[in-house]
Amino acid sequence: MTSHMTPEQFREHGHAAVDWVADYWERIEAHPVLSQVAPGDVARAVPPRPPVAGEPFEQVLADLASVVTPGLTHWQHPSHFGYFPANTSGPSVLADLVCAGLGVQGMLWATSPACTELETAMLDWLVDLLDLPKRFRSDSAGGGVIQDSASSATLVATLAALHRATDGAWGRQGVRGRHTIYTSTQGHSSIEKAARIAGIGDANVRLVDVDPATLAMRPEALRRMIEADRAAGALPTMVVATVGTTSTTAIDPVAAIGEVCRDLGVWLHVDAAYAGSAAVCPELRWTHAGVEHADSYCFDPHKWLLTGFDCDAFWVADRGELIQALSVLPEYLRNAATESGAVIDYRDWQVPLGRRFRALKLWFTMRWYGVEGLREHIRRGVDLAQQFAARVRADERFEVVAPHPLSLVCFRLRPLAGEGEAAADARNEELLRRLNASGRLYLTHTRVNDRHTLRMAIGAPATEERHVTAAWEAIQRTAAELLG
Amino acid sequence: MTSHMTPEQFREHGHAAVDWVADYWERIEAHPVLSQVAPGDVARAVPPRPPVAGEPFEQVLADLASVVTPGLTHWQHPSHFGYFPANTSGPSVLADLVCAGLGVQGMLWATSPACTELETAMLDWLVDLLDLPKRFRSDSAGGGVIQDSASSATLVATLAALHRATDGAWGRQGVRGRHTIYTSTQGHSSIEKAARIAGIGDANVRLVDVDPATLAMRPEALRRMIEADRAAGALPTMVVATVGTTSTTAIDPVAAIGEVCRDLGVWLHVDAAYAGSAAVCPELRWTHAGVEHADSYCFDPHKWLLTGFDCDAFWVADRGELIQALSVLPEYLRNAATESGAVIDYRDWQVPLGRRFRALKLWFTMRWYGVEGLREHIRRGVDLAQQFAARVRADERFEVVAPHPLSLVCFRLRPLAGEGEAAADARNEELLRRLNASGRLYLTHTRVNDRHTLRMAIGAPATEERHVTAAWEAIQRTAAELLG
Repeated sequence: MTSHMTPEQFREHGHAAVDWVADYWERIEAHPVLSQVAPGDVARAVPPRPPVAGEPFEQVLADLASVVTPGLTHWQHPSHFGYFPANTSGPSVLADLVCAGLGVQGMLWATSPACTELETAMLDWLVDLLDLPKRFRSDSAGGGVIQDSASSATLVATLAALHRATDGAWGRQGVRGRHTIYTSTQGHSSIEKAARIAGIGDANVRLVDVDPATLAMRPEALRRMIEADRAAGALPTMVVATVGTTSTTAIDPVAAIGEVCRDLGVWLHVDAAYAGSAAVCPELRWTHAGVEHADSYCFDPHKWLLTGFDCDAFWVADRGELIQALSVLPEYLRNAATESGAVIDYRDWQVPLGRRFRALKLWFTMRWYGVEGLREHIRRGVDLAQQFAARVRADERFEVVAPHPLSLVCFRLRPLAGEGEAAADARNEELLRRLNASGRLYLTHTRVNDRHTLRMAIGAPATEERHVTAAWEAIQRTAAELLG
Repeated sequence: MTSHMTPEQFREHGHAAVDWVADYWERIEAHPVLSQVAPGDVARAVPPRPPVAGEPFEQVLADLASVVTPGLTHWQHPSHFGYFPANTSGPSVLADLVCAGLGVQGMLWATSPACTELETAMLDWLVDLLDLPKRFRSDSAGGGVIQDSASSATLVATLAALHRATDGAWGRQGVRGRHTIYTSTQGHSSIEKAARIAGIGDANVRLVDVDPATLAMRPEALRRMIEADRAAGALPTMVVATVGTTSTTAIDPVAAIGEVCRDLGVWLHVDAAYAGSAAVCPELRWTHAGVEHADSYCFDPHKWLLTGFDCDAFWVADRGELIQALSVLPEYLRNAATESGAVIDYRDWQVPLGRRFRALKLWFTMRWYGVEGLREHIRRGVDLAQQFAARVRADERFEVVAPHPLSLVCFRLRPLAGEGEAAADARNEELLRRLNASGRLYLTHTRVNDRHTLRMAIGAPATEERHVTAAWEAIQRTAAELLG
């Protein structure tokens, strides 16, 4: 007999696994935020080959603590202030459990209609929740889909833009000629990667100047660049405007960029991977001014909206173009529902064929929190960040180096009198290194106007005011050590 | 206060969610295999917008039964014989729960070293388990990584092949010239899709003839096609050989194809998405003869190896080429571990940036079953399929239309005396329609030598001999109705 886990065993071991996760969350502050292992430490704890005979579940669960936990950087730790938040929540985790337990495939409507229709409904809910343009809704010409990440959303947008720019010839013949893509100097690295993957080449990603104070794209520089490229024989294909850049949460002027795109006939993709969640709050919707110009738009509920990775929400204004760009229909996938034209087959909206039932985690999360709960979560992150920025400003050794409208604050130690920027950069690097090595908090860095800058990204659901206070005290203390 | 789910609430609701899944598995046979809903039925059961206030978890869980379950096609049902199996298992589901609960990001080694190192170790375990070439191991020049699907593995292989074919110029400049990709007429649709995504164009996917009896690629036809294309100015870039095609599980002669690729300097990718799992059993490793020639190889533990979607295992013989093809390093991702060169950053091995801790489900599953348990599972699927094929052969109304070395049997009703093929096709289509409409079993179809053919794909963990017997009896009974 193959020893499949019976439903009764699953019940028993499942309760133990749930308890393991609950215990992990309860005790998460006991761990250093940043893993302290050296390269190879985890690998050495794993036997060189799989066991011949099966092992008890209890043993596997016990090994999590010995093998895995020391090698984790704890993203759900309340003092994880690195990168952007990677929120998850109880309802999201339990939806992932149900998703895994059902084990259905959503590649076609027919392969599990609920997987497709609940996803469409949830993406429509999100349009409502963020007050996004109605043309993204499934009852218009547009529609939404879950991608694994904003990187994949950018890639899919690039493909639809290539399809449009070539009247569909691209799909058959491949890339011909020099297609160009535009983003600001602050655009995400996934744009370069998408250009490479799509056969455009990263040399054809054109970086548009920003205002040095706001770090937002200059629309007139964009216009001039597109016009010059076109005059030189290039094929301007897509502009990626960013609402909340990864470096500093700069917000590009989407309305003005949208006008340029409309005038010059170029696809506009809006990447709001992190900052999209802010639009849950009416008072933060100014960040989204102009998104009605977008041909496509994405944000990541898995960043700041309490829905675990992977869950990027991506919309297009014209689903027909997207489907034409990506549809390939072999015999073994033909079915009556597809041929009726009455259903969505989400495999045609993404790179992979197979897909999980990820809509469940949006459903569970939005229902558990409600609109009010989600707003409160966002507001708390923004409030804590503003408090933090005020504290940085009040300490003359430090400077805040970029606007911080949301929950990220970029700051640094100022250069000492008469000191060059290189020395100050080195001191900021050392400050970051010491803070992270302490295990008590975790921050990451960027460069702003070419200067080394610390990023304090708030927004984990477990983060309370006391954690931000403790972080600031650690930063001050460590700075004092460095400044002698 | 934002109403985050506390660890204590998570414990309580988590136990309920585990019980829900256990109950679902216990009662799965009560459901029709193929969902009986009509387009729009599920959507109509969902309110038009998210609730303003949060709702109790109990309500959400209760709505699974009313809103979701009727709209599922039950892939874990023991009488799901469609497509290929999409195995999951108790240990895999619980690993997904732990993965979701930890909520860590594995994009870089530094962002959770255990996520990377356990993945590398598990891919090395799989090399051992399947007896794959040693050069795929992480202690050689190669290495393995989890992709979401074989589609993404094929895309990533295409990108590495483009990188190699152009000495890296592709990454900067984009696709220039007519790159061509080769697979058999039986190759998977994801190859065409990858060619489109990569900017090669699906017209440049060249379909090589197969032997009409085995449906396996003819290596000499491949050689002639590549030589002719090259003479005509094309840039032959990659061959995709298939071990176990989606249509019929045909097995391409990889050793002979490998010689062609070596002689002509073309990247060889081996797609063993479904059949790779067979190599767990020594007596089935003949299917993998010649994979030592592969530059890249993939199979899907999420198909037939008891590890839930998404989990495609992908290896390259030279990880350096892959990393060069896909690496983009912005300032905000720089870190000391990456710069030391001592670690793997898996973001450079895939399309997206972010990644989940999917190695946990390979770890849990291989440890729960052990090598012996996994072999027994594969053998049982193969045995049941061979029994089924013998029954089809013993009934003169039917014919088996392709080799069936693994757990898929392709069969059809023969044409009646004096009847054309079109009439027989229509009868087979109607046979399939009636079987699936019954809800008692689910099969899908293909075309073999242009004739409508039913596919009986065995291999779900819950499938026992009685389910296969019941399926065959339903097929016979329905055929009798149709034949009058």
